[in-house]
Amino acid sequence: MSPDALPLRLEALPLRLEALVFDAYGTLFDVHSVMRRCEAFFPGRHVALSQLWRSKQLEYTWLRSLMRRYAPFSTVTREALAHACEALRLELTVERMEALMAEYNMLSTFPEVPKALGSLGGVKKAILSNGSPDMLEPLVAHSGLELDAVISVDEVKVFKPAPQVYELAPKKLGVAKEKIGFVSSNCWDALGAKSFGFAVFWINRARAPLERLGFTPDRVVERLDEILL
Amino acid sequence: MSPDALPLRLEALPLRLEALVFDAYGTLFDVHSVMRRCEAFFPGRHVALSQLWRSKQLEYTWLRSLMRRYAPFSTVTREALAHACEALRLELTVERMEALMAEYNMLSTFPEVPKALGSLGGVKKAILSNGSPDMLEPLVAHSGLELDAVISVDEVKVFKPAPQVYELAPKKLGVAKEKIGFVSSNCWDALGAKSFGFAVFWINRARAPLERLGFTPDRVVERLDEILL
Repeated sequence: MSPDALPLRLEALPLRLEALVFDAYGTLFDVHSVMRRCEAFFPGRHVALSQLWRSKQLEYTWLRSLMRRYAPFSTVTREALAHACEALRLELTVERMEALMAEYNMLSTFPEVPKALGSLGGVKKAILSNGSPDMLEPLVAHSGLELDAVISVDEVKVFKPAPQVYELAPKKLGVAKEKIGFVSSNCWDALGAKSFGFAVFWINRARAPLERLGFTPDRVVERLDEILL
Repeated sequence: MSPDALPLRLEALPLRLEALVFDAYGTLFDVHSVMRRCEAFFPGRHVALSQLWRSKQLEYTWLRSLMRRYAPFSTVTREALAHACEALRLELTVERMEALMAEYNMLSTFPEVPKALGSLGGVKKAILSNGSPDMLEPLVAHSGLELDAVISVDEVKVFKPAPQVYELAPKKLGVAKEKIGFVSSNCWDALGAKSFGFAVFWINRARAPLERLGFTPDRVVERLDEILL
């Protein structure tokens, strides 16, 4: 074990981890600004549109992965938006689609994120995201976050929660999976990572009930900075 | 080609098919009676519960398939119901869960189904379903439908739309996939079958917009008996 390994509390037990790997969308980055832009384009419909867009976006990542018809997250996100607008009978122009997609490249981090990440000394830090490089590169550059790696599922051409995706982190970071803590606000992503073999923190920002997939997170918190407590 | 092959119209072109393979839930069998029982147990909440239960049921099949943590559809369906009730703050007793699961074993077919299937002479007919054998066997027996095969994904321990699932049909029926017509009311299932290589009919009972997954059905109808027209 590295002498710099960081003590993090997982339930009652402290566990020495050598790397922390974070999901991006909804975990480090707040997608609220995309919702705000939806409201500007489609007054009064932004909640319905944001929810359907997000659920189709995830659904299409899972379906394409199972069909073995991977397409980059930027493509899937556009296709999900087009379907959601059609289902809700909202007129989606090319300009609106591009303006909404552009928001994804300059999302804000959640308020506690920069300080929390800055205080995590002694461990490697990385992002592991469904996002394609064309989305993640401008996003991370815009955020100013300092990370040891920004890893995209695009390298393995399949989306989360396939184990090949989580396998990228130990490979890229040179750290055994048992020494990696994985942090996600998406419960299904946290459980996929747990199934793979990481120690897992679920940031349950929305106080949602646990997904029932045969696994439980090692620790549940409501904000990123609580994983240090 | 078999001399008995059935002419079916796919868009403008008639195509000679040697087998028709049907999805079960929502395609041949109407899940309305499960919704009715939800209403009896949770007055005024059956629409919300039925929708969330169904969406979690599908989500869990996709997630478990990607995680390589297959569990039988009966288990997944129970887990999805438990999550949906927790999310909606509805009290689910063991008795209620078992009563709702029992409804699945005696679903009615849609009104046009028995006659439509009876008139499809000259082709093999089969069900290919996510349902586990413990769910499909009583369901098909109760329906009285005459089929050449009832195929469950349980044999390959992965759910639709993985190609290994669709591959079961040509294997079991001894018919090349190009000679098989696949019929589903679930658009994503129809497109998974199309990606695999079947000729595909989407029964769009709900007049929903097409899912955007890089494929289109060969023909879209609103009722099962229209595939004969």
